[in-house]
Amino acid sequence: MNIKALYHRPDSNFCFPLSDHEITIRLRVDAADHFAKVELVYNSKYLIQGQQLVKTMARAYDDGTFAYYEITLDLKDTRLAYVFRLYEGSQAYYFSERGLTQTYDFNLSYYDFFQFPFINDADVIKVPAWTKKALFYEIFVDRFNKGDTTKDQSYITMKWGAIPTNHDYAGGDLKGIIQKLDYIKGWGFNALYLTPIFKSRSYHKYDIEDYDKVDPQFGNLDDLKALVKKAHKRDIKVVLDGVFNHCSWNLKQFQDVVKNGRASPYADWFIFKGDHLNLDEPNYEMFAFCKDMPKLNSSNSEVQRFVCDIGARYVKEYGIDGWRLDVSDEVSHDLWRGFRKTVKALNPDCLILGENWHDSYPFLIGDQFDGVMNYPFTKACLDGFKKPGLSAAALAGRLNGLLVREKGPINQMMLNLLDSHDTHRFFSEVDEDKDRLLAALALLLVYPGMPCVYYGTEIPLPGGYDPDSRRCFPWGQPQNGEYQKALRRLLALRTLKPVQEGETRIVSKGTMLAVDRFIPDGPSVTLYLNMGPEGAYFQADGDVVASSNFVGPLLPSFGYVVTLKGE
Amino acid sequence: MNIKALYHRPDSNFCFPLSDHEITIRLRVDAADHFAKVELVYNSKYLIQGQQLVKTMARAYDDGTFAYYEITLDLKDTRLAYVFRLYEGSQAYYFSERGLTQTYDFNLSYYDFFQFPFINDADVIKVPAWTKKALFYEIFVDRFNKGDTTKDQSYITMKWGAIPTNHDYAGGDLKGIIQKLDYIKGWGFNALYLTPIFKSRSYHKYDIEDYDKVDPQFGNLDDLKALVKKAHKRDIKVVLDGVFNHCSWNLKQFQDVVKNGRASPYADWFIFKGDHLNLDEPNYEMFAFCKDMPKLNSSNSEVQRFVCDIGARYVKEYGIDGWRLDVSDEVSHDLWRGFRKTVKALNPDCLILGENWHDSYPFLIGDQFDGVMNYPFTKACLDGFKKPGLSAAALAGRLNGLLVREKGPINQMMLNLLDSHDTHRFFSEVDEDKDRLLAALALLLVYPGMPCVYYGTEIPLPGGYDPDSRRCFPWGQPQNGEYQKALRRLLALRTLKPVQEGETRIVSKGTMLAVDRFIPDGPSVTLYLNMGPEGAYFQADGDVVASSNFVGPLLPSFGYVVTLKGE
Repeated sequence: MNIKALYHRPDSNFCFPLSDHEITIRLRVDAADHFAKVELVYNSKYLIQGQQLVKTMARAYDDGTFAYYEITLDLKDTRLAYVFRLYEGSQAYYFSERGLTQTYDFNLSYYDFFQFPFINDADVIKVPAWTKKALFYEIFVDRFNKGDTTKDQSYITMKWGAIPTNHDYAGGDLKGIIQKLDYIKGWGFNALYLTPIFKSRSYHKYDIEDYDKVDPQFGNLDDLKALVKKAHKRDIKVVLDGVFNHCSWNLKQFQDVVKNGRASPYADWFIFKGDHLNLDEPNYEMFAFCKDMPKLNSSNSEVQRFVCDIGARYVKEYGIDGWRLDVSDEVSHDLWRGFRKTVKALNPDCLILGENWHDSYPFLIGDQFDGVMNYPFTKACLDGFKKPGLSAAALAGRLNGLLVREKGPINQMMLNLLDSHDTHRFFSEVDEDKDRLLAALALLLVYPGMPCVYYGTEIPLPGGYDPDSRRCFPWGQPQNGEYQKALRRLLALRTLKPVQEGETRIVSKGTMLAVDRFIPDGPSVTLYLNMGPEGAYFQADGDVVASSNFVGPLLPSFGYVVTLKGE
Repeated sequence: MNIKALYHRPDSNFCFPLSDHEITIRLRVDAADHFAKVELVYNSKYLIQGQQLVKTMARAYDDGTFAYYEITLDLKDTRLAYVFRLYEGSQAYYFSERGLTQTYDFNLSYYDFFQFPFINDADVIKVPAWTKKALFYEIFVDRFNKGDTTKDQSYITMKWGAIPTNHDYAGGDLKGIIQKLDYIKGWGFNALYLTPIFKSRSYHKYDIEDYDKVDPQFGNLDDLKALVKKAHKRDIKVVLDGVFNHCSWNLKQFQDVVKNGRASPYADWFIFKGDHLNLDEPNYEMFAFCKDMPKLNSSNSEVQRFVCDIGARYVKEYGIDGWRLDVSDEVSHDLWRGFRKTVKALNPDCLILGENWHDSYPFLIGDQFDGVMNYPFTKACLDGFKKPGLSAAALAGRLNGLLVREKGPINQMMLNLLDSHDTHRFFSEVDEDKDRLLAALALLLVYPGMPCVYYGTEIPLPGGYDPDSRRCFPWGQPQNGEYQKALRRLLALRTLKPVQEGETRIVSKGTMLAVDRFIPDGPSVTLYLNMGPEGAYFQADGDVVASSNFVGPLLPSFGYVVTLKGE
């Protein structure tokens, strides 16, 4: 046994409650170590000395380096004390807060067991019911659809459909989205993530100068109200983009500091050196190196209140269903804790999604975000489906690694995506190969969490990095080819219960990746995906509910089959 | 290299800011792996593609299983991206969020580096200045000193000095403590931790029925005010015991639920099944199995406000310097986050200490407690100084393991203790051997954190488990023996700057444990402790500032020497 691979820490992604009486426990071991048995030995911390309960743990995940045993307990007394018992043959070892030992005296163990002292409901991560079925569609507002033909059009700098440059305005707006709600619903999407809509000089609107107004290019607050109302009528949720890390230098509070320097009542809203702001050679913190986008000081309590008030207003007065938070990883945890308290008090089902590109665990322990834009999943897909792709085993390892990185319920609220306005389009990343795009979409749809499809994927639109990934939606193109038919079948998988809330096992066999989503003692959905360069023999077991072009018996390279069993 | 021993996670005890521009980074490796060099390769996340800065990390801790490399950076741009570079001979390896690789292309690394996205001041752990010098004295109030001779004495059930049973009242009170402030100060203590003082029927008062009153047995609110005032005059801090996990069943809110069941406005203040409380066969959550101590529902927002209001009142109106929080690990994180916000807003220097007996990391990330009662340190000392004791190497490992378990600044605020009212007296644990008690006290005084000495240790008092560890203080006994002289020298170590704020290295050589506390390029204090059963050759290097009976050249078993260098 490689004892240095053993890892467990209570009250973390290795031990988390699911409800006021259920708790999941994980143990990490060396993937090369296959134990005869791994048991959890546990009881109430006040009883364990005299009586130990024992359950066998399942080997549930393998990330290529480590394997993870897991069990979920249903407790009467939630003051849990526990240790692990690992069997190499018939030799038992105990793993406790003390480390690995060959014996363990429960009578002398008070200092040494692991414990979860009490499950308090306030600390249990709640999963809004709608997220289990959520199928997101991301809209870059200026480029999706122009609906208002009566507005002042003079700001528009490009013809709809031309290739955009970095500063072009195409004319898309909220009315345009409203007009396409039935179109969106027709594809099966039931949640929208919109890039920012508030007053801002740029076409992308990530530099907001007035959070109280919809940018006139996009419409007005009544349009927002109408959009939410009409979306809700169709059972579509609306998530807005909250840009609170930074603002536009036209924000009135920043302008006050430009004018009055340290004497401004807003001086501490920003982070700068000296007595006055220097706009030429910025002496203040900003987003990246964009001097027109000064960073808000998220440690300041007035800034915190300002942000929370905005967060609350659009939930309360406009009925939005969630916030996606821009550059959220550069904002203080302290601000986000208050933001969550504020927003969830108004609507516990309001979704809070961060934009963190890396390991986001410190934001995902339950007191800040529900989930994040899952760019590590994006990266796994890029590495898997760009040639030469990862092996099935390597991809399985990456996907498993992401699952165990978070507390279980968080995985259901991750916004999984192949691409966005901040990346190349995935279709272009895979050499405009529709088969590989569909294979990746199949994985996106079956993997735990909320799939988010970038507008235009249904064409599919190509596009390099910003601004090329932000092309205008080509309305009028036919959408009834083989690709669209396959896509529709994939999107429909989201309506299956095992996909919505099943447990997950991801394994590989040869070149075949298998992602199994199953309800214990109930139905299961399994994705089989051939990651090899050649066709692989495959025979479906269960009803085929989606697949790439496959007549059998060889599933082609990057071919996929999704089966449903036990329904 | 044992790659499965490698561990790092940003924004954790492996990566934490010390200020708005300083950050400490740690990397865990197999203790058996000795690298030619371990480097941190880093820069602003917006610059690292083009330019990498490099610093060599120090091998700082060894817990017997793993070794930990550490470095503290002083940053200009705090948007930190980094990877580790480990050299086996001249072969370099990179360790990033992706895992271990032989090459690392910084141009293609955006998804893969570790990062600390921005240091926000609100998330930086602040260490109240006074804690660096704090030397605590724990007082079990009923047993320390009776000062009020005019109060109703009829509640007293035992003669001062008799051996207490589980239900005895001895008569100690706040006036008694006030009378002994000069005595306490005379020993060098500058902080008091008092067991609970609020209205309660028990002698220990861990079952509070009115948080607005000092128990009349102990005095009244004016006595509390006088105690704090007179203590502060002597530069002594006062920390009270906050019992908020549970209360007495005489608390009026619980009595209302007894009477009205689910219809009571306080029904959700407690956790129970059914419509009515059953006091005979408790159907409600309680402390341990004590039905007269019902658990407060710390998920309820009114309970949270109730607790925060009490927390605030004694800080604001009575000027106390901190709260020690009873059974804090069974209370919701959610409550403690609000508690910290409330209390720190009134006094950022107010100390918040939890009573957690196990790994307390989830409470110590910066948003809840400053520190906890360091019972894992207690356990290491018990294992080290009870016969047969741990080897010097094993004890060094245990002590190092505790240090790396927390973010660095937290270690300065841990309440380190050998014993308390909830344990056997350490003196009895070591067979009433004063030499071993002094050796353990030497370690307590030199180890990072705030030493807390249980009243009576200066005699030293013996005592088994509760109630025996709660004997009356034997006033009138002489306190000028060799033991007391040695103890005074040890307590005086707390006035030395390296002990207050020095960095820490704990190593062993043969049977000798060495705990070095040093200011970089400044003075250092080192404790040498012979953990072996025989005398060990020892020659002091530096000025001896404390030692056990040692004439040289052999330092006896459990003998210690503390030296000061570079002063």
